[in-house]
Amino acid sequence: MQKLLNTIQSPADLRKLTPEQLPQLAAELREFIIDIVSVKEGHLGASLGVVELTIALHYIFNTPDDLLVWDVGHQAYGHKILTERKDKFDTNRQWGGISGFPKRNESEYDTFGVGHSSTSISAALGMAIASKLKGEAEKNHIAVIGDASIASGMAFEGLNHAGVTDTNLLVILNDNAIGIDPSVGALKNYLTEVKEGRNPRQNNMIKSLNFDYIGPVDGHDINALLKELERLKNKKGPKFLHIITTKGKGLKKAEEDQVKYHAPGKFDKVTGEILPKTEDNLPPKYQDVFGLTLVELAKQNEKIIGITPAMPSGSSLKFMMEAFPERAFDVGIAEQHAVTLAAGMATQGMTVYCNIYSTFLQRAYDQVIHDVALQNLPVIFCLDRAGLVGEDGATHHGIFDIAYLNPIPNLIIFAPLNEKELRNILYTAQLGLEHPIAIRYPRGRSESTEWQLPFEEIEIGKATELKKGNTVAILSTGTIGNNVTKAFDEVDNSSLFSHYHFGFIKPLDENTLHTIFKTHQTILTIEDGVIKGGFGSSISNFATENSYTHTIKHLGVPDSFIEHGKVSELQQYCGIDVKSLEEIFSAYEN
Amino acid sequence: MQKLLNTIQSPADLRKLTPEQLPQLAAELREFIIDIVSVKEGHLGASLGVVELTIALHYIFNTPDDLLVWDVGHQAYGHKILTERKDKFDTNRQWGGISGFPKRNESEYDTFGVGHSSTSISAALGMAIASKLKGEAEKNHIAVIGDASIASGMAFEGLNHAGVTDTNLLVILNDNAIGIDPSVGALKNYLTEVKEGRNPRQNNMIKSLNFDYIGPVDGHDINALLKELERLKNKKGPKFLHIITTKGKGLKKAEEDQVKYHAPGKFDKVTGEILPKTEDNLPPKYQDVFGLTLVELAKQNEKIIGITPAMPSGSSLKFMMEAFPERAFDVGIAEQHAVTLAAGMATQGMTVYCNIYSTFLQRAYDQVIHDVALQNLPVIFCLDRAGLVGEDGATHHGIFDIAYLNPIPNLIIFAPLNEKELRNILYTAQLGLEHPIAIRYPRGRSESTEWQLPFEEIEIGKATELKKGNTVAILSTGTIGNNVTKAFDEVDNSSLFSHYHFGFIKPLDENTLHTIFKTHQTILTIEDGVIKGGFGSSISNFATENSYTHTIKHLGVPDSFIEHGKVSELQQYCGIDVKSLEEIFSAYEN
Repeated sequence: MQKLLNTIQSPADLRKLTPEQLPQLAAELREFIIDIVSVKEGHLGASLGVVELTIALHYIFNTPDDLLVWDVGHQAYGHKILTERKDKFDTNRQWGGISGFPKRNESEYDTFGVGHSSTSISAALGMAIASKLKGEAEKNHIAVIGDASIASGMAFEGLNHAGVTDTNLLVILNDNAIGIDPSVGALKNYLTEVKEGRNPRQNNMIKSLNFDYIGPVDGHDINALLKELERLKNKKGPKFLHIITTKGKGLKKAEEDQVKYHAPGKFDKVTGEILPKTEDNLPPKYQDVFGLTLVELAKQNEKIIGITPAMPSGSSLKFMMEAFPERAFDVGIAEQHAVTLAAGMATQGMTVYCNIYSTFLQRAYDQVIHDVALQNLPVIFCLDRAGLVGEDGATHHGIFDIAYLNPIPNLIIFAPLNEKELRNILYTAQLGLEHPIAIRYPRGRSESTEWQLPFEEIEIGKATELKKGNTVAILSTGTIGNNVTKAFDEVDNSSLFSHYHFGFIKPLDENTLHTIFKTHQTILTIEDGVIKGGFGSSISNFATENSYTHTIKHLGVPDSFIEHGKVSELQQYCGIDVKSLEEIFSAYEN
Repeated sequence: MQKLLNTIQSPADLRKLTPEQLPQLAAELREFIIDIVSVKEGHLGASLGVVELTIALHYIFNTPDDLLVWDVGHQAYGHKILTERKDKFDTNRQWGGISGFPKRNESEYDTFGVGHSSTSISAALGMAIASKLKGEAEKNHIAVIGDASIASGMAFEGLNHAGVTDTNLLVILNDNAIGIDPSVGALKNYLTEVKEGRNPRQNNMIKSLNFDYIGPVDGHDINALLKELERLKNKKGPKFLHIITTKGKGLKKAEEDQVKYHAPGKFDKVTGEILPKTEDNLPPKYQDVFGLTLVELAKQNEKIIGITPAMPSGSSLKFMMEAFPERAFDVGIAEQHAVTLAAGMATQGMTVYCNIYSTFLQRAYDQVIHDVALQNLPVIFCLDRAGLVGEDGATHHGIFDIAYLNPIPNLIIFAPLNEKELRNILYTAQLGLEHPIAIRYPRGRSESTEWQLPFEEIEIGKATELKKGNTVAILSTGTIGNNVTKAFDEVDNSSLFSHYHFGFIKPLDENTLHTIFKTHQTILTIEDGVIKGGFGSSISNFATENSYTHTIKHLGVPDSFIEHGKVSELQQYCGIDVKSLEEIFSAYEN
């Protein structure tokens, strides 16, 4: 039988099918996603869960004229495949390939670039207001948002505004009771009650916000979806459709272990079995160094508390949640709350490790300034996935943190060189710091399997000389310093170079800096973050303020957004991979 | 008759009174606030509205052991007066005096520093969890939050978490239907329905979040408050008390014009009449230059939209809201939503002026990066109250914006020298910029009454030579450049100095910079913002990257939080007032 999916390049083709053909198309689309993601990797569960919704939306609505915004975008693989990107889908998340998220410059069907959660309602409302002002009264605007994302404050702000407008906005709540990890919070419990029929309809939170609420509807029943969407298409004003789906739908193992199959890596497309990686004797992930060390420390120090906004698995705070459930908190996608909650706890003498991905701390910037640093509360921020993160791309790189944290008074900023130093700074941070501290470390594997050594206190504000040379001083911060060490092994003029590791980006070790400037002619700074306002920038400021007249060069992320690809590819693009460093080093003459 | 208030230094004294004496105390406290604020200025309306609540809270609860968090803190004057600061209250908001907001290092009764809105639930919940872990089961934790603040996303995040805890948290909603301007949004409408009895109790949004909801209660009925608080004190778990108050209660004029009497300046304490200021022929406020110019532009360009998060009066967007109500939006205290809403509108070709106080844009930092700059949408950010803001103090200074915006790719950053340049950049921004732009300007009066001149386009990225000298180049950005000009008039070696105005902080005018570095020995940068990561820092980076070996000095805000006081006092503290500049300039030898 001819596959229906083969006949579809765009939604216009889709709309030529009969409603009766759509369940078959759904099966084919699911198979196509599984076929490719099983080999090429990527986010699986979310897209499998919205196959029927995706088809129904493009079938009923006149995309791209009707404007469809996917929240976060993990779930948009089916959307991409049905909107002219089927043939490119095997390049998903690769350098030069299509993005893993909707992206405006990739397709006119991608109305709004996403990646971080909870933006869809605000964005779609903005579009809807614009349409109204332009006299495009018939246009529909649809935000598809999950139950984890809608619990974030920003989504509430969007709903609160939308409810008092008369715009053609349809919010679809894709309720599968899970984000990357299971959803949490009072709203989640409320939605569960609604689903289970335990909550009388009249007690409807969404109706309180002046939305026309419909649901819950089975999100895998394509006929039910068609019927509701057709009805809602012609209804004016803000509308809210609550659908129930199963994350990972159609792949048994993915339905059974939804956390693991969020982004499972390679797997057997028939059995769903995740393919074993050859991981024997690899160094631990930095995430596990954090998670396991925190458990060790929490055993000794009962004041320790751990907080994560919705990333217990990703951050490995799950280890503490298992060991000390009463002292470890997943607060959901609520970075603002997470930071100020930590501040509140710190006022009562608790030692709080607030673990937030670097890119998501952008969501709580004011809280870091206003609630933590201004009050000089010794909260310990653990900035996971700092630096270039790889395949998640431009929305997710943790490259701005040094630049945005550096201007904040009272804050200590530290980037460990390796797993041992991460472990020791986590230890040091709970010995009684008088300031808040931000500890940034990257996604992925560390340098050595020999990491669970006895704790050693790190002296605050002290840089480390890793190698002594005589002409060029290399100043690095964080794990990118290991690229420097590796590059030294490959060049024949390495005696020229000194190498200093500035774990502390703030406060800067000015004594060591004076020594460096007095004993070297040229300074080269390297960091896994934006050059503008970053670590190197601080070194330039130190130099001009102290009237040093050295040549100073900065390596790091240039002043442009960096796309997706392997970390090694992105480092190469930025000129901070080992090979680029070799070339730079080789150019200095003996 | 002996005044009751005279007998009270702290809540312990208050608790010696009988309940029957409390209404008299309320009258005296109100009078005391009016007496002082009428002369010393400050935030009036909010504190008058919670006089009864303040007394009742300290009477029933065992402060400071029970922990009381005031959201925002505008309303905490009564609290300050009853907690050992009556004698210092006349120093409110003055340099060296007490802060206008609760502040931890001012009093043990100020459990959490506030200023920005919607932090109280998260902070109090953090305290409550800490108490529970410490085994302090009897302790109470109270967050008092207004109806404008609770509509902000962060407050929702706090409620969503608190609802699934078993902590002793009492959230008191002080519902007066107004923030600084009248409250907006669907939640506000819902609360109005509840107040007016039009909403059946069972449809209770707060109950949906698993709170024990009580209300609405008359917040000026001290006996009713005592009764409810006494009952709630001994009830475990998360509780929510909804009280109805009148902002400005007890001063007729303040009740009648709640916007004007939020912070009315000096007024007649008997009649309430606001005292006239001698304002004839003063230059316009920058806010009015923004607001009036936007109306002019909106008349010519129908694509223009204005957005403010809850500051229509403060920002003067009110002029556009009056002239073009369908194209100007007050979205409430929802900075995150405001920015992404603007982004959504921009995708549909609208020209959006998103006006946010510099300090509050910290709340939407991720949205600026992720939703606007990454997609290179030409949103026009108008950053009001940039720089040192004066009496509001450390929480409100807009001093970080240059540093946190500078690392963002695609973004143009501009700081006008004066009202004419603000007007012209507002004009230029809607001529079809290909990038987002942030325009930062200060609170208060501009330089000249002659400002409504024909529009002139400003060349993007071009610096301006204001004065040609021969040794020292002064590089300033924004209105602080006027201090430089004024200082020149007072020194006798002004021929030494060139003065360049860098309206564009990004992109930097590198051509002009090369000329400057080639023709001057010394560079002095001046900005009304943090030095670390600021404009001067960019100049140092330019210098080191281009191997210039000049002496470069930076003037601006040092790396510490700056307290409250007159702008002139704060500028003096930072060494950027006219007099400090005179001294610096005079030290250079002819």
